[in-house]
Amino acid sequence: MTTRLNIVPFVSVDHMMKLVLAIGIERFLTDLAAYIEEDFRRWELFDKTPRVASHSIDGVIELMPTSDGRLYGFKYVNGHPKNTRDGRQTVTAFGVLADVGNGYPMLLSEMTILTALRTAATSAVAAKYLAPKGADCMAIIGNGAQSEFQAVAFKALLGINRLRLYDIDPAATRKCAKNLEGLGFDITPCASAHAAVEGAHIITTVTADKQYATILTDNMVGSGVHINAVGGDCPGKTELHRDILLRSQIFVEYTPQTRIEGEIQQLDPDHPVVELWAVMTGKTPVRGDSRTVTLFDSVGFATEDFSALRYVRDQLADTGLYEELDLLADPDEPRDLFGMLLRAAKHH
Amino acid sequence: MTTRLNIVPFVSVDHMMKLVLAIGIERFLTDLAAYIEEDFRRWELFDKTPRVASHSIDGVIELMPTSDGRLYGFKYVNGHPKNTRDGRQTVTAFGVLADVGNGYPMLLSEMTILTALRTAATSAVAAKYLAPKGADCMAIIGNGAQSEFQAVAFKALLGINRLRLYDIDPAATRKCAKNLEGLGFDITPCASAHAAVEGAHIITTVTADKQYATILTDNMVGSGVHINAVGGDCPGKTELHRDILLRSQIFVEYTPQTRIEGEIQQLDPDHPVVELWAVMTGKTPVRGDSRTVTLFDSVGFATEDFSALRYVRDQLADTGLYEELDLLADPDEPRDLFGMLLRAAKHH
Repeated sequence: MTTRLNIVPFVSVDHMMKLVLAIGIERFLTDLAAYIEEDFRRWELFDKTPRVASHSIDGVIELMPTSDGRLYGFKYVNGHPKNTRDGRQTVTAFGVLADVGNGYPMLLSEMTILTALRTAATSAVAAKYLAPKGADCMAIIGNGAQSEFQAVAFKALLGINRLRLYDIDPAATRKCAKNLEGLGFDITPCASAHAAVEGAHIITTVTADKQYATILTDNMVGSGVHINAVGGDCPGKTELHRDILLRSQIFVEYTPQTRIEGEIQQLDPDHPVVELWAVMTGKTPVRGDSRTVTLFDSVGFATEDFSALRYVRDQLADTGLYEELDLLADPDEPRDLFGMLLRAAKHH
Repeated sequence: MTTRLNIVPFVSVDHMMKLVLAIGIERFLTDLAAYIEEDFRRWELFDKTPRVASHSIDGVIELMPTSDGRLYGFKYVNGHPKNTRDGRQTVTAFGVLADVGNGYPMLLSEMTILTALRTAATSAVAAKYLAPKGADCMAIIGNGAQSEFQAVAFKALLGINRLRLYDIDPAATRKCAKNLEGLGFDITPCASAHAAVEGAHIITTVTADKQYATILTDNMVGSGVHINAVGGDCPGKTELHRDILLRSQIFVEYTPQTRIEGEIQQLDPDHPVVELWAVMTGKTPVRGDSRTVTLFDSVGFATEDFSALRYVRDQLADTGLYEELDLLADPDEPRDLFGMLLRAAKHH
């Protein structure tokens, strides 16, 4: 790694893909999950603020900062549902990790791909604590951009090897099944959400519907099932019928944010929920009995992005998969910024 | 300019210096000042939020976002006074401009140099409205990194050509005077702040003191003078004696922020102040008579960074002074991020 003070390592989209492939998707997700879990376990250390959102008619741009007192990270992320019309991504993201001690950025990274990975890794970490023992079959309802990442993360962390796929668009299911070919799954494409959940120990909902939707109704959810609800993640966007929530033990990342963005926006603001960190540290027990339905109401939190940036940063020295960005002014004499400009003129 | 959706133009420190020198520092400041003024004049359009600050023992890291409904900008900036000990800058910054319509970043730019320029340009724009007519002599108390930028901006916008320099460190004054050599100033180094303000129509205070300091006392400020107070810009850091504030007409950028960070943190929270935009749009008159002391209590606001990013963005096509950053994932099919990864493997 460089010691030149003006340089910040930059991980481009191309380098991120190379990094994931060099490490291997399964191992990347496993190792990333360990970083995410480590940071959840030291939850109380983190400076937690709600996202800073700038809303417009077409979408939202958000900044998600957090810090553990030693490192600082933030993610820039947009959400623009209409983007796919002109070939753009609905969500793009990038992030920065910085040194709290001197305020200097240490890493700039693409985070569109990295967010997909950390979302899947977080779901799998949560399921490690919440899913029924011996679970090996997962239904995935919604077979879009996040679906394969979920599948691979659950295989890597929980040994899930049977998938039941459903999407309102059969082409999405075909795409998902094709992408997962040869990765060790027994895949069943299903004709309905009802069919998909049959025999599944874990139900992952990850649809892109932008409104209140009812992907799962109460009668579809058997006892002892773990629901991994990933798709409902902003105000006005939910996937589960309220009755399911009322009979589930509900787990969230950061309660104040999930009350606004998660499935629980359908419930009273004081409905009991458990934060993941409390489960991971053993503070709160899970599953009174084997018939309990557990629900991870995932919306994505800043610490997960922080963990992901921290993980990527730690891979740079060994892999060399980054560029050097001349991002920081570094005059020989800190008080002489103007002189630095003048001297640059002489080199012209 | 590129139309490839994955690419974001990046202005490095090196490119920023080349850009400033290609345009010329005076013209850069003049043109930038016009962008800043234009944005102040449409103040009410802007989404204004306080900075999002993460404080630590050694300093602060801040995000400063704003939007005019069409463009979105934010600046990352740190403040770490102890940094100069190991050769780092106290303040470094970078920023991003994005399209509100699709959330895609349009520009990533260094902002350490750009912030120095926008701070000086903002001071000069304010003085254009607030300084006494015919002013041609300015005292600069504090001859550090910002001092030369202030001098050149005031020359470019107001025709200031006589400078009276003072710093507690005579080496800083020598550095400042040397850097400004040949730029058309008549420069007088002074042995005290008292000496520096003699005959000056404008007094710029831009010291780096980190605590409550009294750079100017009441008896030093004659009638009709304009004070450009740049150095006091965070809680606990001020430069002017309270008595000066009490007999001045005070102008601020964004009142809620300046109450916390500016000189007026010494005053009652309801002490009357005037926002710059109200002066520029003619909403509030200035200078009841020629003896009024006017004070611009500068702390720096997000719209100024937004204007600066907008200005830089508009120079890229003509100058070509940027790199192309592969920052955004751009799969052929937006729902197929995983497939993009798989296809990258095949190219390995």
